[in-house]
Amino acid sequence: MGEIKPLPYFKDRYKVDLVFYVDEIVQVLQDRFSQHGKPVLFLLYGKSTDSGNYSKPASFEGIEKFDTDLGTLHPILTECRVIKSEMELGLIQYANDVSSEAHIEVMRQAKPGMKEYQLESIFLHHSYRYGACRHCSYTCICATGENSSILHYGHTAAPNDRTLNDGDMALMDMGAEYNFYGSDITCSYPINGKFNSNQATVYNAVLKAHNAVISHMQPGVKWVDMHKLAEQTILESLKNEKIIHGDIADMMTRRLGAVFMPHGLGHLLGIDTHDPGGYPEGLERPKEPGLSSLRTIRELKEGMVITVEPGCYFIDALLRPARDDPVSSKFFNWEEIEKYKSFGGVRIESDLYVTAQGCKNLTNCPRETW
Amino acid sequence: MGEIKPLPYFKDRYKVDLVFYVDEIVQVLQDRFSQHGKPVLFLLYGKSTDSGNYSKPASFEGIEKFDTDLGTLHPILTECRVIKSEMELGLIQYANDVSSEAHIEVMRQAKPGMKEYQLESIFLHHSYRYGACRHCSYTCICATGENSSILHYGHTAAPNDRTLNDGDMALMDMGAEYNFYGSDITCSYPINGKFNSNQATVYNAVLKAHNAVISHMQPGVKWVDMHKLAEQTILESLKNEKIIHGDIADMMTRRLGAVFMPHGLGHLLGIDTHDPGGYPEGLERPKEPGLSSLRTIRELKEGMVITVEPGCYFIDALLRPARDDPVSSKFFNWEEIEKYKSFGGVRIESDLYVTAQGCKNLTNCPRETW
Repeated sequence: MGEIKPLPYFKDRYKVDLVFYVDEIVQVLQDRFSQHGKPVLFLLYGKSTDSGNYSKPASFEGIEKFDTDLGTLHPILTECRVIKSEMELGLIQYANDVSSEAHIEVMRQAKPGMKEYQLESIFLHHSYRYGACRHCSYTCICATGENSSILHYGHTAAPNDRTLNDGDMALMDMGAEYNFYGSDITCSYPINGKFNSNQATVYNAVLKAHNAVISHMQPGVKWVDMHKLAEQTILESLKNEKIIHGDIADMMTRRLGAVFMPHGLGHLLGIDTHDPGGYPEGLERPKEPGLSSLRTIRELKEGMVITVEPGCYFIDALLRPARDDPVSSKFFNWEEIEKYKSFGGVRIESDLYVTAQGCKNLTNCPRETW
Repeated sequence: MGEIKPLPYFKDRYKVDLVFYVDEIVQVLQDRFSQHGKPVLFLLYGKSTDSGNYSKPASFEGIEKFDTDLGTLHPILTECRVIKSEMELGLIQYANDVSSEAHIEVMRQAKPGMKEYQLESIFLHHSYRYGACRHCSYTCICATGENSSILHYGHTAAPNDRTLNDGDMALMDMGAEYNFYGSDITCSYPINGKFNSNQATVYNAVLKAHNAVISHMQPGVKWVDMHKLAEQTILESLKNEKIIHGDIADMMTRRLGAVFMPHGLGHLLGIDTHDPGGYPEGLERPKEPGLSSLRTIRELKEGMVITVEPGCYFIDALLRPARDDPVSSKFFNWEEIEKYKSFGGVRIESDLYVTAQGCKNLTNCPRETW
């Protein structure tokens, strides 16, 4: 394993006040913190509002000699993670810079006949070789054709193994990580370099939602309102293209936006891709379709980093029940929707930093069509 | 996650006789196997002879309704893994073909001024983009200069982050994995493309050991004897170069080979990089320096795949005690050894398949110097 570093090395490297060997922990804690009785250890223990699982608190041999407090630390540290320091922001910006460039390199090289995993490999290589990012924040989603409507495509049982066809759209959701801080970026584009009319329709609907949200973001804005703004913007575009018809407000009340965007608008980003802090004590996850997928419903605060990732997909498993419901069904132009049967979907995702007056887009990928 | 596949898909894909959903397991087992009383489940449970840890047997809700046998399956399945089928050999050969090419690509691109992790990135990219290997069998060891004497360099706390210098040797231990079957290959070479005299000395000592072992391998040969053959070959070369002096047999008795090669000659390879089966019931790990690091001491059998990876390193932490020992010390020419102080080390590693008459090298990397 190499040279064993002396204690001062770690003190300096991690900027901490005291450093000892692990096997001294009981002695050191007792020697230094027993003046006022049995020392209390504050341990990190809390629920993940995504998985519902609880973190495992730190432990060591002899811990029973101390009092432990499992409740105090978790909400405090979680809130510290929600508001990013300048140093943290620097790392997230760097991961975004590297990932944005790597996405562009993938766009340059993608062409019909390649395999999806080759695009993944190009992204990984560009991020590591030229950006020193050894890891990604999450498994690369390199979805083309119909696969782009599979939200977590790329997993072990569907490992980006399809061949790219002329006429396919690509949905590339990939982000590099640097010093444990992540990025989370999605680019959608036609593999052959040219949008056809249906592709441009869906892409521009999503882009308009992406841009509308970003232009409204600032401290005090409610994230649920941003989610609804994205839904409404997409529904309006689809209505303009006669894919749906009727009153948009009625559609919103019936939560029809979730038929096309069955995921949340975005999530906090940091050490974890889905960073914690989205539901502090007192905030409950909504129950309605679409809103129930939101990983936070907080008001925006200066210092947050949050993804903006509207999407529009044509998913049989969601369209079928909408068609079967006599009230929902009348909002859809089913003949038109048939043309998007094997379209898949489009997602556009950027990482935003909330500033005092608005927000700053940390992601720098080409977005406009012309 | 995408389309949910029907049961016949899995039956066909995994070539099994029966397929059911997991939540039916209790019912199906009881319905089909209760004719002769309570069914017995054979579960996989056994000790890793590397870590000393025990595997966790399979479990499911309701398993208490069955009798379980924890002892039978492990030795049988382990022995099945020791002898490779033709299909398994095909996968290991493919992983070797891809990795051998990727090693050559790294050799081509390596030059002073680059970072070690850039070599790692080239290997990963070549294996994935051109070979469809998404994973490696183990964390890449891209050691240059003195780092090449750190056997498990490249780990998280030493992540291949050194800059390559003119005059450095590189020790690249990297292997791609395909359909869960691995490869394990090490190439050592000078970064600037030209061996200097000390580099050639150590490299050729190791290459001679590598080739000697391969030329002796066949069913019935004891792996401990191969380890000793490698040690002896290296010691003879070092004696020819006046780095050590005295009687080779004496050195072997004193286990001085382990000062220069403090690891085993090789290990079984398959689904795991260090595949199990090295110490079946009745074989005990030796205690002597060097030999104690062997992951197997078995006799070779037709169908085994095993790595041959002799190495020669100049490690202060091993040379110091040899120098302090009055008997060992006299075998070393300390003035000469001083010249190798910051040399690091050389390892040459190939994957061998034991045939009826000898063995076949699955690895195809350039090895000779000229």
